[in-house]
Amino acid sequence: MDRDKILLTPGPLTTTLRTKLAMLKDWGSWDADFNAVTARVRRSLLDIIHGSDSHVVVPLQGSGTFSVEAAVASLVPRDGHVLVLDNGAYCKRAAKLTTLMGREATSLEFDEAQPVDPLALETYLQKDTSITHVLMVHCETGAGVRNPLQAVADVCARFHVGLIVDAMSSFAALEIDARSTRFDALIAASGKCLEGVPGMGFVFIRKEVLAACEGRSQSLAMDLYDQYVYMEKTGQWRFTPPTHVVVALAEAIAQFEEEGGQPARLARYTHNYETLVAGMRALGFKPFLDPAVQAPIIVTFHAPDIAGYDFKTFYAAVRARGFLLYPGKLTQIETFRVGCIGAIDSHAIKQAVHAIAMALQDLTLSN
Amino acid sequence: MDRDKILLTPGPLTTTLRTKLAMLKDWGSWDADFNAVTARVRRSLLDIIHGSDSHVVVPLQGSGTFSVEAAVASLVPRDGHVLVLDNGAYCKRAAKLTTLMGREATSLEFDEAQPVDPLALETYLQKDTSITHVLMVHCETGAGVRNPLQAVADVCARFHVGLIVDAMSSFAALEIDARSTRFDALIAASGKCLEGVPGMGFVFIRKEVLAACEGRSQSLAMDLYDQYVYMEKTGQWRFTPPTHVVVALAEAIAQFEEEGGQPARLARYTHNYETLVAGMRALGFKPFLDPAVQAPIIVTFHAPDIAGYDFKTFYAAVRARGFLLYPGKLTQIETFRVGCIGAIDSHAIKQAVHAIAMALQDLTLSN
Repeated sequence: MDRDKILLTPGPLTTTLRTKLAMLKDWGSWDADFNAVTARVRRSLLDIIHGSDSHVVVPLQGSGTFSVEAAVASLVPRDGHVLVLDNGAYCKRAAKLTTLMGREATSLEFDEAQPVDPLALETYLQKDTSITHVLMVHCETGAGVRNPLQAVADVCARFHVGLIVDAMSSFAALEIDARSTRFDALIAASGKCLEGVPGMGFVFIRKEVLAACEGRSQSLAMDLYDQYVYMEKTGQWRFTPPTHVVVALAEAIAQFEEEGGQPARLARYTHNYETLVAGMRALGFKPFLDPAVQAPIIVTFHAPDIAGYDFKTFYAAVRARGFLLYPGKLTQIETFRVGCIGAIDSHAIKQAVHAIAMALQDLTLSN
Repeated sequence: MDRDKILLTPGPLTTTLRTKLAMLKDWGSWDADFNAVTARVRRSLLDIIHGSDSHVVVPLQGSGTFSVEAAVASLVPRDGHVLVLDNGAYCKRAAKLTTLMGREATSLEFDEAQPVDPLALETYLQKDTSITHVLMVHCETGAGVRNPLQAVADVCARFHVGLIVDAMSSFAALEIDARSTRFDALIAASGKCLEGVPGMGFVFIRKEVLAACEGRSQSLAMDLYDQYVYMEKTGQWRFTPPTHVVVALAEAIAQFEEEGGQPARLARYTHNYETLVAGMRALGFKPFLDPAVQAPIIVTFHAPDIAGYDFKTFYAAVRARGFLLYPGKLTQIETFRVGCIGAIDSHAIKQAVHAIAMALQDLTLSN
């Protein structure tokens, strides 16, 4: 049946009808009405991290990865040296794009089942004084680990190195407070925990480091300083904005605020997460991570112990019942992932668990 | 009144309700249904230029400028030398992004009121044999000039230099036939003459030069070779695609095909253009360009000869009547622009001219 599927994925995710309905209008990218939407979105984003005193926010066209690349290109000097705290696939991607653009990058490797270790960072920074910036992923959706942002930020502050945080899948769900947590840049995107549609990212930049960003980027499209200056001057985006995506984000943010902001969103996602894990455990599924290090964003489960199991068949059987799972991203073990985020509540999660139970029955019977 | 305005702009532009309604659904970016949409869009795009034998097409997140930058980054070797045929603002932007990424760029300058001259190109290529690529803008929306694509392509072929064409505002409206016109790359975007919503671009790359693109880009996000290889292998985008923008484009392309493809679209836009110019001339407005070099995409008009005229007031007076004009982009003369493209016909254009007449009356009276 052609009914909408529920997306149990880390973005794009399920959005509300109200958010999607905001896209039923065309906007002139030069028009004052649209500029007002952009300005409102930027103000709201800063409010979420209590950052209007300390930071600016620069929206950017493209996926979240475009914004991560833009942040590195604009924040790190050409002779800078980035230390990537690597405990997963998204960390490796950040290291790769840093190297590719000609900035030096070194990876400090951690187990993908564990958070990165602030003590190991401290030890490293003591011996290698060439590091100018540390790059961390707040919630590594590769496995679903929550990394210790505050502790890492404290170490970076003590060593006077810049901190760049990929907060793609944590922003608006996990608490991030710019008043007490010091970072030079923090990156997220429209189609994650704010529950907008995908198509733009945004980067918070600490005001104190903003001026030094001028002229660093070798990419015109990704130059956040240039984008910032133009936007402040004109209220407009430098290049054609994804107008429908921007107005959908504005509508998604309005609902985020009505729901009660970040604490309410975290509470809903946490309830989704707990409902999911309880249900899946009852079906015999084992989460990959220790609950103590798990973010309530996306959960990695070991593949079920069925002879001849393959993810594609399992996916199709769950999909036929209206839910889209997400493949695992671990290289060594067969896993799959289930997202707890998006415009869904614990009722939807219970139905998803029920669909997984039925799919499992199919797979076992056909065996 | 809160009615939708008609956008007389070169993109974002007015789209049909059917195109926008396609965005009322969330899609999993990993799901087979979405992969099928991406595949269908790519096939249709190649068909529009009769290019399935000679070219591949690579979609990219972001605005059209992101795709122009990606084309240069992926096509031009790091020691390449790009000659930009410069007759307007978008040419200058292309030269700037080329230089910024560390490729050598030289501009061959032409009058912004005239098309670029293939003979001048020939003369230049005879004396400077270091040029590896020529970059031209097919329709320079700065003033609205149509540049001679076929003649430039012929010169490039004879001199064995690559040709990169920014066809942002011409693609799907002006004829482009890859069977008879030789180019290495041609760039356009979702939110222009295909009448989709903004948020993604795409680059046609000649199959013969594709393999050599590997490893050239210093940007991970903009590496078209990497995007192409991944898409061919998996059917998916490398990084989160703007799912709603992609499905809106698919729906816009379906309507483009139903309308009769490029010839029908050109006929409608030409009729819009003729209706606009006739109506505006009757009001005393003078087009900036000689009709012989004007593309039927966007028309630059001299500002009306009213004491104390300023564009903002004029814009607001036309806007109050439901139509959005576009500011001029010429540096020397006061002008404004009116787009002929988007999901509008000559009736809408007549109403726009009427609105401009009423606005003019306001301005004259208040004088």
